[in-house]
Amino acid sequence: MKERSMDGKTIILRVEIDIQQAQFGKAATAIETAGGDIIAIDVIHTDKTKTIRDLTVKMTEAGAADRISSALGTLPGIRLQHISDRTFLLHLGGKITVQPKTPIQNRDDLSRVYTPDVARVCQAIEQDPSKAFTLTIKRNTVAVVSDGSAVLGLGNIGPYAAMPVMEGKAMLFKQFADVDAFPICLDTQDTEQIIQAVKQLAPGFGGINLEDISAPRCFEIERRLREELDIPVFHDDQHGTAVVLFAAMLNALKLTGRNIAGTRFVICGIGAAGTACTKMLLAGGAKHIIGVDREGILTADRHYDNGMWQWYAEHTNAEKKAGHLAEALAGADVFIGVSAGGILTRAHVESMNAEPIVFAMANPEPEIRPELVEDIVAVFATGRSDYPNQINNVLCFPGIFRGALDSRATTVNEEMKLAAAEAIASVISDEERSPMYIIPSVFNAKVVEEVRKRVIQAAIDSGVARRHPRE
Amino acid sequence: MKERSMDGKTIILRVEIDIQQAQFGKAATAIETAGGDIIAIDVIHTDKTKTIRDLTVKMTEAGAADRISSALGTLPGIRLQHISDRTFLLHLGGKITVQPKTPIQNRDDLSRVYTPDVARVCQAIEQDPSKAFTLTIKRNTVAVVSDGSAVLGLGNIGPYAAMPVMEGKAMLFKQFADVDAFPICLDTQDTEQIIQAVKQLAPGFGGINLEDISAPRCFEIERRLREELDIPVFHDDQHGTAVVLFAAMLNALKLTGRNIAGTRFVICGIGAAGTACTKMLLAGGAKHIIGVDREGILTADRHYDNGMWQWYAEHTNAEKKAGHLAEALAGADVFIGVSAGGILTRAHVESMNAEPIVFAMANPEPEIRPELVEDIVAVFATGRSDYPNQINNVLCFPGIFRGALDSRATTVNEEMKLAAAEAIASVISDEERSPMYIIPSVFNAKVVEEVRKRVIQAAIDSGVARRHPRE
Repeated sequence: MKERSMDGKTIILRVEIDIQQAQFGKAATAIETAGGDIIAIDVIHTDKTKTIRDLTVKMTEAGAADRISSALGTLPGIRLQHISDRTFLLHLGGKITVQPKTPIQNRDDLSRVYTPDVARVCQAIEQDPSKAFTLTIKRNTVAVVSDGSAVLGLGNIGPYAAMPVMEGKAMLFKQFADVDAFPICLDTQDTEQIIQAVKQLAPGFGGINLEDISAPRCFEIERRLREELDIPVFHDDQHGTAVVLFAAMLNALKLTGRNIAGTRFVICGIGAAGTACTKMLLAGGAKHIIGVDREGILTADRHYDNGMWQWYAEHTNAEKKAGHLAEALAGADVFIGVSAGGILTRAHVESMNAEPIVFAMANPEPEIRPELVEDIVAVFATGRSDYPNQINNVLCFPGIFRGALDSRATTVNEEMKLAAAEAIASVISDEERSPMYIIPSVFNAKVVEEVRKRVIQAAIDSGVARRHPRE
Repeated sequence: MKERSMDGKTIILRVEIDIQQAQFGKAATAIETAGGDIIAIDVIHTDKTKTIRDLTVKMTEAGAADRISSALGTLPGIRLQHISDRTFLLHLGGKITVQPKTPIQNRDDLSRVYTPDVARVCQAIEQDPSKAFTLTIKRNTVAVVSDGSAVLGLGNIGPYAAMPVMEGKAMLFKQFADVDAFPICLDTQDTEQIIQAVKQLAPGFGGINLEDISAPRCFEIERRLREELDIPVFHDDQHGTAVVLFAAMLNALKLTGRNIAGTRFVICGIGAAGTACTKMLLAGGAKHIIGVDREGILTADRHYDNGMWQWYAEHTNAEKKAGHLAEALAGADVFIGVSAGGILTRAHVESMNAEPIVFAMANPEPEIRPELVEDIVAVFATGRSDYPNQINNVLCFPGIFRGALDSRATTVNEEMKLAAAEAIASVISDEERSPMYIIPSVFNAKVVEEVRKRVIQAAIDSGVARRHPRE
C-alpha cells in the first residue's frame, strides 16, 4: 500500500533585502514570531543595494508558512522572492539521471561504443537475438509504465503529473536492488493503445513494471502483455501489495498459532488490490475467504455486472454467506481492509474470533485506527509508516525484479510471488517475531537479498528461468 | 555521417590450464607466434588441478585471433574457454545506467521522493502542466528513438540489434552535453504505429531524437511528430549530417574565397541525408544546386514517382540541366557525395571549376579516395575518422539539444540549425582554418558550448523559446 501526502516540515525562503531600508534581524524576528525556526542561511547574491539569501526554516506550528509569508510582506525593504520546501527542491529537474558506464575519452573509446566498431555488436545480436540480454541494457533494465489514471490516492491526474511517482520508483529500484528502471508515462488511457505502446517499446527492457493504472483496465492490460511479451510484466499495485500482505500474514498466522487452511478471512474492498491479495491467499492455501464491497458480501447466488466481482463470487465464499460487513466478520479470524477510512468499528472486531488479526490498509485513514482496538486484537497492520507493521510495496518490487532479471525469467508467476512473500516473512526470525514486528523495515538489506534468492529458485523450479545464475 | 565497423585490435582470451599436463609458458609462446602480444594477465580462478586466466592480447597482425585460437586448440591441457574483444566487453550488460540524483537513506528521504510527500509535487504539476519542465526529468531528457530499419551501414537489423547504437548515442549526449538520453527501440516499422508510440511516450521527455529510421518513412514520421508534439523532434541522420556538412562548407567556401550564392553545388545521392543537406544549403543562401541519383540529374522537366525526387527536381536545377554525373560536374565548384563508394573519378574532378571542393561522405568507402585527387582539390572532406575533415554528427546533436532544452524550445527550426552550423564553423578561427582543418574535432569542448549559445539565441529570436536562460 502507498501513503498519501502530508505537509512538508521544512521550507526554504528566498528573501531579497534592501540594504538601505531593512535589516536582516527584523526578518528573522518576524519569521520566528510566525512559527518558524531558521536553521540555515545561504547568501545567494549581494551587491551595494541589496542582498539575496536563502533561509532554511523549520516550521514549528501548522500554518506557519502562510503566516511567515504575510509577516514578511509587511516589512519595508524585505521582499520574499519565493518559498520552496525541501520536497520541491529535491524534485527540481527530476530525480534520476542517465549515466554512461564508461567515459569516452578519445577516438578509440568513441569508435568502440559508437561507430564504427559498435556495428560488430549489432551484428552479433542480429544473428542471435538472445544476445540482447548480454550486450545491451536489457539485462538490467525495467520500464516503469503508467498512464497516470490511478496515482497514489490522487486519482486520474494524467501522465505528466504521474512522473514524479514513477521517477521515485526508479530511484527505489536502483537504490534497493541495483535495477536500472526508467519511467514511461503514456499519453493515452485507451487499453489497446497502452498494450500496443508497451509491446512496441519493450525490446530494450528486461521487464515491465505497470504502475498506477486504474481498474478494470489494469487487468486486461496486464493479462495481454503477459501473454504477448516474453519478459516479466508485473502490475505492482496488485501483486506488490498482495505479496507484502501475504508475507505479513504468514507471520501473523504463526504468532497466533493458526494454519492458513483453517483460517477465516474477510476482505473488504474488492478492487485490484483486494482481488490480488485474495488470489495470493488462495494460492497460499486459504480455504475460507469472504469478500465484501459496497453491495455487501459477494456471493455466487447473485450475478454481478462488475466482472471482477463475478469472478470473486465464484471463487470464494463457498458457504454462500449473505449480508454485509457485520455478518461477514462474525466468527472470522482475519480482517483485511483495502477499502475506505473508518468503516470498521470496535463492535465489528469484538464479533470476530479470539485473537483477531486486523490489516487496515486504507490510506491515508485506515479502516479503523489501531488505538481504538489495540487491547482486543492479536496483530494489527496498516499501510502507514507512523504505525508498526507497515504493508509497503517497497519490500517486494526491487527484489522480485532483481530475481526475475538475474534468472532471465519469461514471467513472474504465482510460484515466484509466493517465494517472494515467504522470503520477506523469513527475514524476521522466530525470536524477533512479535505483534509489533511481523514485517521487516524497507531499509533492511536482507530483504532484497532473500527475495532475490528465493525468486530465482522458484523461477528455475517452475521452468520459466532462461538462465541459472552462478552464485 | 557515420562510420562502419572494423575489427577490434585487442582481445581477451579466457584459458583454462590443466596444471598436471600443461605450462603457461607454452600457451604464451603459441599466442606470440600466432601474432599476439600478451599485455596483461588476470588470474580468475585457481585450484589444485587447474588455473583459469584472462589474457589481454594485442593483435599485431590481421587474422591473428583465428590463428591464436587454432594454435591453442592443439596444445594438450590448454582449453580456450572463450575469446572476447574489448568492444564486446564494453557492451556487457549495456553501456548506460539509470542513477538516482540523491540517495534514499532514511524514512524521511523516502517520504519526500516517493509516497506520501511526492503527492504534493504531482498535484502541483496537475494544476500547472508546464511545471513538468521544472519538477520532472522532462527538463533534461531526450528519447533516442529508432525502429532499427536503417542502422549504420547495416540496414534493417531490427530493434534488438539497434540498441547498442542507441545506447552509444545516449552516452554521447551525456558526455558531451550533460543531456540525459534514453534509448527506445520500437518493435514496429509501421509509420502510423511509430508516430502513435512516440506521441504516447512523449510526456516524460523534453525532446525526441529520431535515429536510423529508413526513408521515406522517416520524413512522414518526423513531419507528423513535429506537428503533433510541442517538444523538439529531430531526425539526426538527416539534420545532424546537414548541419555538420554545412558548417564544414562554410569554412571551405571561406578558404576558397567563394560566396554561397555564387557557388555551383552538385549533390550525388538524393536520399534522406542528401535532401536534408540541400535544404540547409538553400536555407543558407545557395542558388545553384543540382541533384544526381541513379537516373541521372533530377530535373523539373521530368516526373518522378519518388516523392522526394519530385520535390527535389522542383526546388533545384533552375537551369534544367540534363544528363548524368559528368554533365552535372562540368563547371561545378562543389561535389557533395552521400551515395556510394568509388563513383567519382579523377576525370570528374578535373572537369570542375578551379579549386574544387569535394565532400565524399559515402561510408565506409568514399565516392573517391582523397589520395587520388589531393593534388587537384582545394578542400577534401569525408565521413571517416582516418582522413582529415571528418563530417561527424557528434558535432551537432549534443549541442543542438542542449540549446533546445535550455530554451525549452517547442521545436528545432531552420534558424536553430543554421545557428548550430555557424557555431560549429566558428570554433575554427581565421588563423587556424586550412584545407586540412575546416571542421573541429568532436572532442573540442568549445563546440557544444558555442552551439548551445547560438541555438538558444536563434530559438529566442525565432519565437520558439519558452524560457530565456540566464547565463
